Amino acid sequence: MRKILVIGSGKSTSYLLKYLLNKSISEKLHITIGDINIENAKKLIGNHKNATAILLDVFNNKARNEAIKNTDIVVSMLPARFHIEVAKDCILYGKHMVTASYVSEDMQALDVDAKAKGIVLMNEIGVDPGIDHMSAMQVIDRIRDHGGHMILFESFTGGLVAPESDNNLWNYKFTWNPRNVVTAGQGGTAKFLQEGTYKYIPYNRLFRRTEFLDIEKFGRFEVYANRDSLKYQSVYGLDHVHTLYRGTMRRVGFSRAWNIFVALGMTDDSYTIDDSENMSYRDFVNAFLPYSPSDSVELKLRHELKIDQDDIVWDKLVELDIFNAQKRVELKKATPAQILQKILMDSWTLAEDDKDMIVMYHKFGYEKNGKKYQIDANMVALGENQTYTAMAKTVGLPVAMATIAILNGKIKATGVQIPIKKEIYRPILEELKEYDIKFNEKEVPYLGYNPLNN
Amino acid sequence: MRKILVIGSGKSTSYLLKYLLNKSISEKLHITIGDINIENAKKLIGNHKNATAILLDVFNNKARNEAIKNTDIVVSMLPARFHIEVAKDCILYGKHMVTASYVSEDMQALDVDAKAKGIVLMNEIGVDPGIDHMSAMQVIDRIRDHGGHMILFESFTGGLVAPESDNNLWNYKFTWNPRNVVTAGQGGTAKFLQEGTYKYIPYNRLFRRTEFLDIEKFGRFEVYANRDSLKYQSVYGLDHVHTLYRGTMRRVGFSRAWNIFVALGMTDDSYTIDDSENMSYRDFVNAFLPYSPSDSVELKLRHELKIDQDDIVWDKLVELDIFNAQKRVELKKATPAQILQKILMDSWTLAEDDKDMIVMYHKFGYEKNGKKYQIDANMVALGENQTYTAMAKTVGLPVAMATIAILNGKIKATGVQIPIKKEIYRPILEELKEYDIKFNEKEVPYLGYNPLNN
Repeated sequence: MRKILVIGSGKSTSYLLKYLLNKSISEKLHITIGDINIENAKKLIGNHKNATAILLDVFNNKARNEAIKNTDIVVSMLPARFHIEVAKDCILYGKHMVTASYVSEDMQALDVDAKAKGIVLMNEIGVDPGIDHMSAMQVIDRIRDHGGHMILFESFTGGLVAPESDNNLWNYKFTWNPRNVVTAGQGGTAKFLQEGTYKYIPYNRLFRRTEFLDIEKFGRFEVYANRDSLKYQSVYGLDHVHTLYRGTMRRVGFSRAWNIFVALGMTDDSYTIDDSENMSYRDFVNAFLPYSPSDSVELKLRHELKIDQDDIVWDKLVELDIFNAQKRVELKKATPAQILQKILMDSWTLAEDDKDMIVMYHKFGYEKNGKKYQIDANMVALGENQTYTAMAKTVGLPVAMATIAILNGKIKATGVQIPIKKEIYRPILEELKEYDIKFNEKEVPYLGYNPLNN
Repeated sequence: MRKILVIGSGKSTSYLLKYLLNKSISEKLHITIGDINIENAKKLIGNHKNATAILLDVFNNKARNEAIKNTDIVVSMLPARFHIEVAKDCILYGKHMVTASYVSEDMQALDVDAKAKGIVLMNEIGVDPGIDHMSAMQVIDRIRDHGGHMILFESFTGGLVAPESDNNLWNYKFTWNPRNVVTAGQGGTAKFLQEGTYKYIPYNRLFRRTEFLDIEKFGRFEVYANRDSLKYQSVYGLDHVHTLYRGTMRRVGFSRAWNIFVALGMTDDSYTIDDSENMSYRDFVNAFLPYSPSDSVELKLRHELKIDQDDIVWDKLVELDIFNAQKRVELKKATPAQILQKILMDSWTLAEDDKDMIVMYHKFGYEKNGKKYQIDANMVALGENQTYTAMAKTVGLPVAMATIAILNGKIKATGVQIPIKKEIYRPILEELKEYDIKFNEKEVPYLGYNPLNN
């Protein structure tokens, strides 16, 4: 039996474990799941003979050392900041490791040691990052193999609610970390490359500079720019493209309404409000509006942001109950962002039978024999229920597939890796199709951002 | 002869030196001015027998020690961050010190040592901070002495161009540090107290939440909130007021136009633009707008910020020549804020014969015998020319007066001080009147922010 140690058994491990257990007989696997709370792990593995759940505190050096020493490969599903201690043990004992998280500076620093030991530390092999890398590189490599050269790359991902559960005015519920949604776009100006020039969007304009995307059968989406559009430019070999743009997908209209919170200052996470505990939702809104002894909070807000009487964004605010004078914030010394998150969680928490959805959209522009071409590719993954979510599926399956591929010597790369090499992405993307995670590609006229090209 | 050492002979020392030299015979003073560049000092003192200019590098410990050891009192007109070494020497040699700068944490930490030595480190005794403290405390103390208790305090200051030199559409020129003007309001949400509730204004709304102030003979001004309205709440003894608001004064219309730069992201000082050196002013504007192969930068900007064809803010932009495709930025790896500053300096630098103006406006609301009252007080100081500016006058005169008062034992306080005590502010405010720096007070109906009080 080959031994796999999965550390962490949170929300995104359901599909990972299901897949590994299904393969455990044919692939001769024994899976150990370690966590400080093993209730969820026990529920997920049932009484499967090839799996064991163990109590494991990842901050207990002795216990962690022991567990890692006794396995063949480690899958860390911990929050990203906890991977590094696991990674160091993996190097110490010469074990491979797989994570779905971004490569941190600390992780990157282990590259030389990992190579010296002949092991791979495979990261960014979930959904975003992960499936985006693999699906993008597959098309980019194919274009290059056929003599094309890339001039445009755009890539967008969104974690949304599935159409059948999409029943609020925002067309949005929290399917990923709510905190990251509330603070999205903060911490610096968004920078990207558009037809050869750098463009900058400050936070206060980010949600007003959206673009549209259409996906067959699923309708129209909008995107706003990520801060880091240029992050993978060199890694993908795109140093000479004219356009490079990465963003986040929402249903149309979300961003315009969200911008009300940004404009008022409700997404600020940098200071706390003294008496937040005793504030009502209405008081919270009023704190960002001028004082008046008589004018209503509603009219002050409409006037401040020039919201017309018949503007649909107003209904979105009302739906969140933010003008309620009875509902209390009940959070002590909270930041505006924390208070807003609480208010949103009242409305945007998934119900028991709600399903989520992951959408991804790439545009590839290239030149070949003096002519310009464009390929659009998109993917939609739907969740089954609150345990087997689209998020758990798109994160867990590629992680699980990479784990077995490493055990089987199919992935030969060593050191700190992300899945941008053919030997890694090709078999995984192929197998993901069996699980209905597949990209629909079509050739479209190359437009770039220039309608005159038409 | 009593010996005064003035360190630093920059723009704001003209009136300071003029005043000290005028008093040098009656007060038996000898003034030594130390700087690394003594050209300006020599020009200012001429061949006055009671003054000497010496080369002094404030970072040369030996030279600095020597100069401070041999004087009776030190006036530091250095940039604020350089005061601390001077202050430490003053404690070492038991010399008093005067500055016009905000009390830094490092400075405050010297309080105990200064008291032990029986010396005073007098700070914040220029214009803002300085004259604002003194003039506010004089009225507040008087209200209290007559049995009133404060319920409202608002205080506003502006460094502007004098009416006779006010000849551009922004009604503004740089009379203080341009960099501080470009980055004003950044670094955190503005917080203030309005009729008993805390109010918050994020940077992106700061220049849209202005209020008006009228000053007789000078017309209407607008104010935007400072970040730190609550800074002197306890120091002034205003812990129980309902309204506390401090702000910056501009001519009406400045802020609405300035907000265009804020909205576009042009005031950002947190990242650099790679090829800024070769950008034209027009390229700079375009970097904050969507790409288009055909639409003009002008139309994209109008559309982005919904600027009507007949809106006067447009003329303000045109006046700055920001759409010029020939003028180059010529700054290497500059931040947007640095580039914007350069563009503004083309238009807003004072001409040889331009005069500046300092305006200040306080509102004092108080309750007495169950009735509410309000006093408004304002002051306008006009510059004479580019050497004897209103800024140099309002900074230099109180510093000089405090220096002589300390030498004469009229100011007896020791330790780290700011001018909020009667013994300090009363004689200085009285003497400032001789130099036409005086506050016009009038009783007005108490409104607060509640028109229903009328």
